[in-house]
This record gives sequence, C-alpha cells and structure tokens, in this order.
Amino acid sequence: MILIHTPSPKEVAAYLALFRAALPQQQFVSLEQLDQPEAVEYVITWGPPPALFAGLPKLKAVFALGAGVDKLLARDDLSPAAPIYRLLDGGMAPQMVEYVRFGVLSYQRHMDIYRRQQMAGVWKMLAPRLPGEVRVGVLGLGEIGRAVAQALAADGYQVSGWSRTPRQVPGVDCLFGDEGLDELLAGSDVLACVLPSTSETQGLLNASRLAALPEGAMLINAGRGDLLDEHALLYQLDNGHLRCAQLDVFASEPLPTGHRLWQHPAVTVTPHIAAITLRQQAVEQIAANLARLAAGQDGLGLVLRARGY
Amino acid sequence: MILIHTPSPKEVAAYLALFRAALPQQQFVSLEQLDQPEAVEYVITWGPPPALFAGLPKLKAVFALGAGVDKLLARDDLSPAAPIYRLLDGGMAPQMVEYVRFGVLSYQRHMDIYRRQQMAGVWKMLAPRLPGEVRVGVLGLGEIGRAVAQALAADGYQVSGWSRTPRQVPGVDCLFGDEGLDELLAGSDVLACVLPSTSETQGLLNASRLAALPEGAMLINAGRGDLLDEHALLYQLDNGHLRCAQLDVFASEPLPTGHRLWQHPAVTVTPHIAAITLRQQAVEQIAANLARLAAGQDGLGLVLRARGY
Ligand SMILES: NC(=O)c1ccc[n+]([C@@H]2O[C@H](COP(=O)([O-])OP(=O)(O)OC[C@H]3O[C@@H](n4cnc5c(N)ncnc54)[C@H](OP(=O)(O)O)[C@@H]3O)[C@@H](O)[C@H]2O)c1
Ligand SMILES: NC(=O)c1ccc[n+]([C@@H]2O[C@H](COP(=O)([O-])OP(=O)(O)OC[C@H]3O[C@@H](n4cnc5c(N)ncnc54)[C@H](OP(=O)(O)O)[C@@H]3O)[C@@H](O)[C@H]2O)c1
Repeated sequence: MILIHTPSPKEVAAYLALFRAALPQQQFVSLEQLDQPEAVEYVITWGPPPALFAGLPKLKAVFALGAGVDKLLARDDLSPAAPIYRLLDGGMAPQMVEYVRFGVLSYQRHMDIYRRQQMAGVWKMLAPRLPGEVRVGVLGLGEIGRAVAQALAADGYQVSGWSRTPRQVPGVDCLFGDEGLDELLAGSDVLACVLPSTSETQGLLNASRLAALPEGAMLINAGRGDLLDEHALLYQLDNGHLRCAQLDVFASEPLPTGHRLWQHPAVTVTPHIAAITLRQQAVEQIAANLARLAAGQDGLGLVLRARGY
Repeated sequence: MILIHTPSPKEVAAYLALFRAALPQQQFVSLEQLDQPEAVEYVITWGPPPALFAGLPKLKAVFALGAGVDKLLARDDLSPAAPIYRLLDGGMAPQMVEYVRFGVLSYQRHMDIYRRQQMAGVWKMLAPRLPGEVRVGVLGLGEIGRAVAQALAADGYQVSGWSRTPRQVPGVDCLFGDEGLDELLAGSDVLACVLPSTSETQGLLNASRLAALPEGAMLINAGRGDLLDEHALLYQLDNGHLRCAQLDVFASEPLPTGHRLWQHPAVTVTPHIAAITLRQQAVEQIAANLARLAAGQDGLGLVLRARGY
C-alpha cells in the first residue's frame, strides 16, 4: 500500500488520480482513507504531519514530492534505515532557469534602476551592458544548478559554478571547495544560489561572504532560506555595497508580516515559487522509481544522509 | 568628406576616432570642424539639427545611426533624391530580444503580480504557467522582430508574428495584413510591438485594437511611441482588461513630467533603451556600406520612402 500526503487535500486528490492511472495494479490511499497503517510500504509526500512515519511499521521508502529534503532529514520519526528518494528535476530545472534568468536580465538591463527612476519620474539612459560583461556565479551544480548555469552561459553571460565535489559543465568555469568559493564570490556580479540546505551550507551566505562580492552586485537566493543571513544582506543593501536581491526562500516562511525584506526597495520577494513540482512529471518519475525498486534495481535520486542531500 | 553628427559631442568624438581608424583614407569631420559644407558627400547621423542638410549641396547619402528613420523621413531639408541607409540590427536585435524576453518572463512568471503582493505584504503562490501556455504576438518581423520572435519560440512560447508582406520565420505562425492582425490580437497574451513608425502604423494600437486583446493581456511597446494611443492603454489598464504594460517609447520623449504613465502601478517605463546602437558594430556596418557604394554596389539597409521604412 502506498500513502500519499501533502498539506492540500485537493492536491492529494489530484495525485491519487494520477498515480492510480499510472499504476493501476498498486493500491494508493490518502491519510483520511488509511485504515491499515501496518500495510503502508511507501509514502509519497511533501510536508508530512509530525510523527506520521512513527506509525508506519512496514515503511520501506519515502518519495519526496520536491527536490529539497532538508525538512525530511531533520525529522525524528523517520528511521535512517528508510531510504528517501527525491525528485530529480521533475520539471523544476526549466522553471529555475526562468526565475534566475529574470533576475539576471533585470540586473544586466538595469531594470531595477529604471524602476526606481520611474518612481522618481526620472528619464535617464544608462550605458548598455552586454551579457558578456556580466559575471554570474551559480552556487550548486546539481540537477537544477547545472541547467541554470548552462542556460546563462548560452545567453552569453560569463558563468562560474560551485559544487562540493569537482564537476564539469560545458561553457561554465567550475569551482569547488572553500578556495573555489572565495574565487567565485570575488568574481560574481550576480550570485545565484540553488544549493540544498545541509549542515555544511546553512549560514553559508554570511556577512563576510556577502562583503566579498564585488561592489554593486546582486544576490538571487532560490535554494533555501537558512543559507542566508538576512540581516547581513539588509546591511549590505542599506550601505550600498550590494545593489539588489531577488529572494524566493526565507529563514521563516511565509516571510513574517512586518519583516524589513517585504518593504525594502532593492528587494524582490517571491513566495517560494521559483520552481514548483509539476504533478505529471513527478508522477512519471516516482512511478518509474517504484518500478525500478520492484525489479530489484537501485532507485534514482537516493538522498545520502551523511552528506545531507 | 564625411560629416558625423549626433546630439552628444562625446559620442561624436568617439565615432570620429572609430571611423578614422576603420577608414584611414577617408576624411571625417564633426559639425564644429566643418569649414567646407560643399565638400560633404555623406552624413552619418542621429538626431541632426534642423536645416542641416539644406546647407550641404553635394550630399550623396545619409547613414542613420539607428534602425528607425521616421524622424529623418519627416524632415523638409533632405532631398528625396538623397538615399538614406539605416542600421540593420547593428547589435540591436539581441538587446531587443532581452528587453522583450524580460517582459514576457515577468508576465509568464507573474512577477508583476508578486511585486504588487509584496507591496501589500501578501504571501500567496499562484498556479504556475508554463511557456507553452503563453501566446506571444510580435508586431514587426524585420531585422529586429524576426530575432525576437525566433528567440521566444526557442524559449517555448507560442509565437505569432505580423508583417506588411508575407514572411516566414521558423517556429513562428506568420500573419500579415488587416485580417492577420485581427487574428494575432485575439490570440496574444503578450503583444510585443517592434514596428517602425510610418503613415500606416501610426495610431495602430488604438482603443479598439487594445480591446481586441484577450482579457488580462500585456502590452510591450518598443517600436515607436506614436504607434500607441496612450490614453486608450491607460483606460484598458484602469478597467482591468489589460494586466500590465512595458513601454520603452512614448508619444512625447522624454515622457513628460506628471504623465500618468510614470506612476501607474501596472506600467513599466524605460527611457528608450530597449536596443541601443552599439558603436563598433555601427561603424563596421557603415564602413562596409561606404565600401559597397565606392565599388558601385547597392548599399544595404536602403530606406524606401514610399513605404516609410
Ligand atoms: N525555490 C524553489 O522553488 C526550489 C525548487 C527546487 C529546488 N530548490 C532548492 O534547490 C536545491 C538544489 O536542487 P537540485 O535538484 O539541484 O539538488 P542536487 O541535484 O542534489 O544538487 C545539489 C548541488 O549542491 C551542491 N552542494 C551541496 N552541498 C554543498 C556544499 N557543502 N558545498 C558546495 N556545494 C554543495 C552539490 O554538490 P555536488 O555536485 O558536489 O554533489 C550539488 O551540485 C534543493 O535542495 C532545494 O533546496 C528550490
Ligand atoms: N526602442 C528601441 O530602443 C528601438 C531600437 C531599435 C529599433 N526600434 C524600432 O524598431 C523598428 C523595427 O526595426 P527593424 O530593424 O526590425 O526594422 P525593419 O527591418 O525595417 O522591419 C520592419 C518590420 O515592420 C513591418 N511593417 C512595417 N510596416 C508595416 C505595416 N504597415 N503593417 C505590418 N507590418 C509592417 C515590416 O514588414 P515587412 O517585413 O513586410 O517589410 C517589417 O517586418 C524600428 O523602425 C524602430 O522604430 C526601437
């Protein structure tokens, strides 16, 4: 039996219908329909309620309906013996490309400055800046970061990327480790973060790393909110060292009422929408993964607890 | 002798240096240096002062330092016998692609709506819309429009294009004439205008054509300001028929102080910067054209007075 749960009953209903159509021989249930917790072998979920997993003695694996699994890994009701499989892309990479491209275009074409000029009724042309004159640093070169870095390189930007282990991405200057990060920060007019939240990456974008960016740089954070010290960011925006920021993820979500980021003129706030799981693609990926497991093969997208992603 | 003139002395100095380096055997002068008006055979210009051409009896041709020649054609000091050559692309097409792409991304990814939510402190995810679900209509399929339409089609949007004569652009549904326009308007979630200003196109985007766009559509105008009835646009934005607009060109430029477009929450105003002539590319193109004329060949980019572009 396979349990499907997300915080939205409408979404659960949609997933139930899609999974039943994709795998008619399997039994899928919602939390409301669940009368035999001991029969549940797999859970397909996003945002499961506390203690859910503790009541499922025969749980074999969890499939996350998203790319980031920091919240799942932090739970205490999930046995480390139960593998977690995350979504690989699942339609998210092209969306993240769009989200980051929008921010980079805004920076390159001075759209944020023109907006402020508009508010002041000022008509003033700024010297054009070509893509080849803008250096973009992409933090994270996984399923999503790779796609972002490659698309921006194809757009003509000078792109560097950063990962934990050495990577190769065509057209992208790939760096890794602490030294690689220093080099990337110093040479990024736009820093775009699509890292997962792990014990190593939490707090990565702190005061000194933001200060290490070139004068007038932009920050895009679409990884996780706890990667960034929001107060350090506000400080660097207020003192003019950084020009602007586009943020999709926050230390606390929804971004609390009255938080300074809401009203800051140099900040664009979006409500964690940079890359949304597309249902049909998620269903296809998880169905294929279930088939792999049933055939005795390794599942794709296995989360490694030791590295935290 | 070749006269170079633009309203900016700094720019004239830069062009003089570049042209002298490109064609050392030719004599280039600025208006200030000009002591023998009767020796001037060619003028390379943008925004020439009134009556300039009347004092040049031996003028053979004019090279415009831009793509749009509506102002040059409207002058009464320039003999219709003197051919005008305009810039073909000149580095402008890729810039226009960026400008239109920014607007289309903003629309597709609801960035304008998220901005308004941000101002109101509202955290609310909107249903994602994929590029294939957004229909973009491009008015004008010349050097610039073709590049815009093709790039947006490659981004995955459903793209239609419109021109005076039948055209073919790979991946783009090409329409022409009055009937083609009606069809394009009815099916454009985003209408992007990169038409020249001619007696036929002036006032094209009037009240009834804006009303013919689908509910919730966006207008991007980067062609010329006199193509659009600005009051009709404001009316359609105010009554909610249109969602937003991104405008680079205006009936009167600079956009007059106090004009309602400056402060409208659904309007992005940019100061005629969508695609700026890149000096080096302009110099290369005009130098090549001068060589063609010297060799008795036809120049490229000849403006046809009868059609107005
Ligand atoms: N805002 C949104 O809507 C949204 C949507 C989807 C995803 N996300 C976020 O994006 C993240 C990435 O997704 P993905 O699918 O690309 O994940 P992924 O395939 O696991 O890639 C993670 C990347 O981060 C790198 N990394 C991890 N820890 C690192 C460290 N300590 N130092 C340097 N690099 C490190 C990895 O390096 P290696 O290559 O060396 O392993 C890898 O390149 C997700 O975890 C999630 O937080 C956000
Ligand atoms: N905002 C900026 O920064 C900026 C920068 C550069 C240019 N522009 C504007 O962009 C315009 C286009 O530049 P371009 O280099 O692409 O010009 P172009 O190569 O001459 O192309 C003009 C296009 O408009 C079409 N057209 C002209 N009159 C028409 C009519 N009555 N009905 C339907 N279509 C008509 C033409 O149709 P055919 O193909 O049938 O001839 C052609 O496809 C310029 O004239 C200028 O106004 C603005």
